[in-house]
Amino acid sequence: MKRLSLFLFALLTISLQAQDSKTVRDIYDIALTESEAYENLRELCKEIGPRLSGSEQADSAVTWGQRVLEKLDLDTVYLQEIMVPHWERGRKERAYFYNEKGKNTLDVCALGGSVATGMNQFIKGDVIEVQSIEEVNNLADSIVKGKIIFYNRPMDPKKISTFSAYGSCVDQRYAGAMEASKKGAIAVVVRSMNVRLDDFPHTGSMGYEEGTDSIPAFAVSTNGAEYLSENIAKYDHLELNLKSYCKSYPDKISHNVIGEIKGSEFPDEYITVGGHLDSWDMGEGAHDDGAGVVQSIEVLHILKKLNIQPKHSIRVVLFINEENGNRGGKTYAERAAAENEKHLMALESDRGGFSPRGFSVKGTEEQLNSIKKWKDLFEPYGIHEFKMGFAGVDINPLEDGKICLIGLSPDSQRYFDHHHSDNDVFEEVNRRELVLGAASMTSLIYLIDKYWMY
Amino acid sequence: MKRLSLFLFALLTISLQAQDSKTVRDIYDIALTESEAYENLRELCKEIGPRLSGSEQADSAVTWGQRVLEKLDLDTVYLQEIMVPHWERGRKERAYFYNEKGKNTLDVCALGGSVATGMNQFIKGDVIEVQSIEEVNNLADSIVKGKIIFYNRPMDPKKISTFSAYGSCVDQRYAGAMEASKKGAIAVVVRSMNVRLDDFPHTGSMGYEEGTDSIPAFAVSTNGAEYLSENIAKYDHLELNLKSYCKSYPDKISHNVIGEIKGSEFPDEYITVGGHLDSWDMGEGAHDDGAGVVQSIEVLHILKKLNIQPKHSIRVVLFINEENGNRGGKTYAERAAAENEKHLMALESDRGGFSPRGFSVKGTEEQLNSIKKWKDLFEPYGIHEFKMGFAGVDINPLEDGKICLIGLSPDSQRYFDHHHSDNDVFEEVNRRELVLGAASMTSLIYLIDKYWMY
Repeated sequence: MKRLSLFLFALLTISLQAQDSKTVRDIYDIALTESEAYENLRELCKEIGPRLSGSEQADSAVTWGQRVLEKLDLDTVYLQEIMVPHWERGRKERAYFYNEKGKNTLDVCALGGSVATGMNQFIKGDVIEVQSIEEVNNLADSIVKGKIIFYNRPMDPKKISTFSAYGSCVDQRYAGAMEASKKGAIAVVVRSMNVRLDDFPHTGSMGYEEGTDSIPAFAVSTNGAEYLSENIAKYDHLELNLKSYCKSYPDKISHNVIGEIKGSEFPDEYITVGGHLDSWDMGEGAHDDGAGVVQSIEVLHILKKLNIQPKHSIRVVLFINEENGNRGGKTYAERAAAENEKHLMALESDRGGFSPRGFSVKGTEEQLNSIKKWKDLFEPYGIHEFKMGFAGVDINPLEDGKICLIGLSPDSQRYFDHHHSDNDVFEEVNRRELVLGAASMTSLIYLIDKYWMY
Repeated sequence: MKRLSLFLFALLTISLQAQDSKTVRDIYDIALTESEAYENLRELCKEIGPRLSGSEQADSAVTWGQRVLEKLDLDTVYLQEIMVPHWERGRKERAYFYNEKGKNTLDVCALGGSVATGMNQFIKGDVIEVQSIEEVNNLADSIVKGKIIFYNRPMDPKKISTFSAYGSCVDQRYAGAMEASKKGAIAVVVRSMNVRLDDFPHTGSMGYEEGTDSIPAFAVSTNGAEYLSENIAKYDHLELNLKSYCKSYPDKISHNVIGEIKGSEFPDEYITVGGHLDSWDMGEGAHDDGAGVVQSIEVLHILKKLNIQPKHSIRVVLFINEENGNRGGKTYAERAAAENEKHLMALESDRGGFSPRGFSVKGTEEQLNSIKKWKDLFEPYGIHEFKMGFAGVDINPLEDGKICLIGLSPDSQRYFDHHHSDNDVFEEVNRRELVLGAASMTSLIYLIDKYWMY
């Protein structure tokens, strides 16, 4: 009897595997042939374009997101109101210095949230090049006072994951100004977070500290950083001229856009999938994070197309304000906690629309191992990496010791060629790479919904 | 005693693994920081450009390849003389048809090796759209006679590997003209081998059969194919006008370019690494196969940089004439056989300079398993795929039942966006993706040289 039931159990397992294998194949097939993700991305990038929180384009993106979700015949689509920061770049920034050859201009942009140099006014000062915040801290105040600090530590090209290289470098951008200000610097210029040498300046968030002066902060393109560094080495004093026009305004109302398929067995238990709707104000926010937005929408589109009725409620969330505040992510988690919602898993795509390689899991070893059991199902689609790691900024506030947070891990090699720059445009996204990511996300959600318990 | 020797053996194994792990890390580090592959590719693409066998640019590429190898301080650099075909496209091809809106032009190019439509002369004929050669074979001769056959079977988007999609589609391009000619067709137009919808026509090799008429063959862009198909569906007769200027000339002398590091223990046993120096005459042959050429050169560059003295002789071969004849590959294998050379392994890179995913092995199960034993060494670099499969056109003639043939497998999603078209240019290659491929190739060759026996 025991042997018979073992036999039946084995038979059931094999049959379930075959069924899952077929469903995963169906998911990829639909994604590769009938996905709307690429056309959605074209609309978001070309009809709306860059959409920084607080901008009119961000409002348009919210309206667009709601309209796209409403076409999917979900059980509910709604907005979640959030106050977001409102910062504007204003006119194109300028930077130049003179050497024996004459005037040299640099490709720069203000960092997000920076104060301006002042109306119709250049900041001028000798430049000091440093490799780190620590180096600034070790300089005498008398040396830094009145100077412009140039942070020039490059992203480490030896790191295979460019996100690791970014992680070990981005402190210069975020905290460079506040630390230099404490020493009396009048402005900072930060080498763009880009592994490649090119002419694009890359913006990104930065902070100030209460009680210290807010000084203007710029990013310079990697080619510009190399050129500036050469000139600093060559001349005793190099005076840099900087001008920016950016300004912060009072907070504005904006929204997370949410759509939901009600679960058939556990309607009060949630699986969230999302990306962020806002972007920086340069380029078109195509990889960051238009790709994640349209992939997340596509997950629900594919489930609908295949008539897969999930057991748990599946929510797509188009988060607002990831780039300069994460208020969308924080608010979503706060409301979930206030409503006492049970969240099984959250999946974010915010690493670009490149060929998917796997998933990065922020959860327990047990959760990771449960996912690894499906690796044979993913193998035919080139999904091999199932690792512990960071999942996503927007979903991170959901962490409660029970939920499993997961990030889609696409190939990272080209990501920082685009990130936060004029080079992050629709044309740089490949349709197949994008939809393979959407299919990978859908397959994972299908399996978690089917097999996991809260 | 036996226990002690087992213990010592285990210790030795661990120490060897640690050493290999460090060497592989060194190889990737050097590739990511000091590789010359990207600058070499820039030269090949921008200073020479497209380099079809028989062209002056192909001669320049041979000279360039020899010069680059001579800078590496190898034990020998030499040329291997080969007679290659010489075909020229001539002026830009033209194709148009009329409908109620007026004249409609299509983006076309002649297939490689095609005859021309005739001097200053358009071919005109009604178009018949088919999905396959079989469909043509099933048509009555009376229907095909005097017509233009339009092969419009798309590459299957559901295949995860675009090379599989290509493999199941390319018969239309290669054999479409000879089969249509047997039925009396006057020309053929083939949908470009491209999964994406765009305006680039993609050329590629085609054949004629002795005893049948050689009729002109064209590729039309995928957008053009869709548009043509719509119009064929709409009108009873659609007359297409085609013009091409291409011509075949007598064979010319060209060369494989070969460089060698002499093995310290087995100088008469060879490991070959290569790509092909020739390209089609459109674009710049950047992914196909400038990437493979500079990666193969880089393998020897990195071994030299790291002072790795191989036990077997390592040969880099820049093959000529892969695209329209494979005479470089055939000649190399013939001479190797004539010299009675022992060839341990050959590795080719000819699938574009994209992020490496693994290796495709044409050999015995035992050989594949030996490689799989190193998978932990490759895992940190995202190299996960070790599969049986085709290795490379140029190295294929080396097959002798003993040699292991291996192809680098990069991510294939974007390859056919570029392949054989004006879109295969240097700007479309990412430096990091390219050099990660070179590092993966070098690591594999290092391990095979160290552990394999002929």
